[in-house]
Amino acid sequence: MPRYKLTLEYDGGGLVGWQRQANGLSVQEVLETAVERFCGNRVRVHGAGRTDAGVHALGQTAHLDLAREAAPDVIRNALNHHVKPAAVAVLAVEPVADSFDARRSATGRVYRYRILNRRAPPVLERGRVWHVGPPLDAEAMQEAAGLLLGKHDFTTFRDSLCQAKSPVKTLDRLDVTRFDEEIRIEARARSFLHHQVRNMVGTLKLVGAGKWRVPQVAEALAARDRRAGGPTAPPEGLYLVEVVYAPGKP
Amino acid sequence: MPRYKLTLEYDGGGLVGWQRQANGLSVQEVLETAVERFCGNRVRVHGAGRTDAGVHALGQTAHLDLAREAAPDVIRNALNHHVKPAAVAVLAVEPVADSFDARRSATGRVYRYRILNRRAPPVLERGRVWHVGPPLDAEAMQEAAGLLLGKHDFTTFRDSLCQAKSPVKTLDRLDVTRFDEEIRIEARARSFLHHQVRNMVGTLKLVGAGKWRVPQVAEALAARDRRAGGPTAPPEGLYLVEVVYAPGKP
Repeated sequence: MPRYKLTLEYDGGGLVGWQRQANGLSVQEVLETAVERFCGNRVRVHGAGRTDAGVHALGQTAHLDLAREAAPDVIRNALNHHVKPAAVAVLAVEPVADSFDARRSATGRVYRYRILNRRAPPVLERGRVWHVGPPLDAEAMQEAAGLLLGKHDFTTFRDSLCQAKSPVKTLDRLDVTRFDEEIRIEARARSFLHHQVRNMVGTLKLVGAGKWRVPQVAEALAARDRRAGGPTAPPEGLYLVEVVYAPGKP
Repeated sequence: MPRYKLTLEYDGGGLVGWQRQANGLSVQEVLETAVERFCGNRVRVHGAGRTDAGVHALGQTAHLDLAREAAPDVIRNALNHHVKPAAVAVLAVEPVADSFDARRSATGRVYRYRILNRRAPPVLERGRVWHVGPPLDAEAMQEAAGLLLGKHDFTTFRDSLCQAKSPVKTLDRLDVTRFDEEIRIEARARSFLHHQVRNMVGTLKLVGAGKWRVPQVAEALAARDRRAGGPTAPPEGLYLVEVVYAPGKP
């Protein structure tokens, strides 16, 4: 059966996250229903990773096997028609080898977190950013972010429900940049623990607000204890930007 | 009575436009109700210009006279509290001279129009862009835009309901720039005719789609006839970005 890779955008706001759940509509359910409407078969759609309820995607990926071949543009247009009215869009469809697995073949994930740092509440970006009114020191946040780079036991930033076998991950990038009223935090790693990005952001925000000194972030990391970390930043500021694959393996 | 200048952001989606109307909620009504809740008086809020139903603002301005002085931050925070749940935010409040008039003192207006140019429909930018699926030639659009610069009779791009005394306007800037899947058109003039930006964008889109040749835009302008122009682009892609005042006059 021909296998296809999907690249997906979604607004996490009205969804319960990637994975199918009893308590509401998931991205997976939206896509599997769209595939069924398109080709008549119930087919499993395998995502590169689970995103939580409320978390957005600019470039989530998934794979699925269809009963027969179809032109990628035809699949994309048909799925975009059938996902309506859910806030999910198929940006691209590519044929891939049977050995391609959206999750296992991935060599990196890039997330972006957006903080709107101004007194007035968001209007055009409502549900798309974390609104923090008091001014944050983005340079101090960047300095603290540097302390988290590299291979560490990230237990301090790991949700208690995390199912990963090991809390050790390698954080390749954690950049804090201010664009006028917006602070963007970009994180890249091969993979992340559950809530890791949101827990790191919640901690960096304490530094930005002057409630924590920069070295406290290193101390929190070394404690290997979730209670030593800052609070979990809200889901609406988080975007899965890209799932990276080795060159030649889309 | 002390006069204040307001700088405003709003999502035009659920609103009937700037001006008070019988058929729905306007930005003006939202603000005047918020002012009344704040200070107990019904006060007129004067905008720099009317925006149509569905048109957004990143930096609309207005002025109002309060019965007594208050700190600008107090006014801003109180109005942002009282406008809820409408998608209107007061970004800044400044005390101004009695001679300041948001509309008459303005020396320029900057508008942005956003086209999402990709096959997949918008999800995160739903209601924030004009979705055009087939590829547009932004360079041809930029070339055509250059033909509209300067002082002209813009009757071809003027809505039949336009109340301006003269159809002659001076277009200072009309820039078409592609950012990946998005084409942004930025327009600046002292003032615009009713629907002028949306009618110019609707015409440039015909050039981008290859339905018009570039010189046809000059011919349409010279015709001084609305029927010679392209269709009106939808309101959801349009943003009033900034109202400009002479230096020293906020």
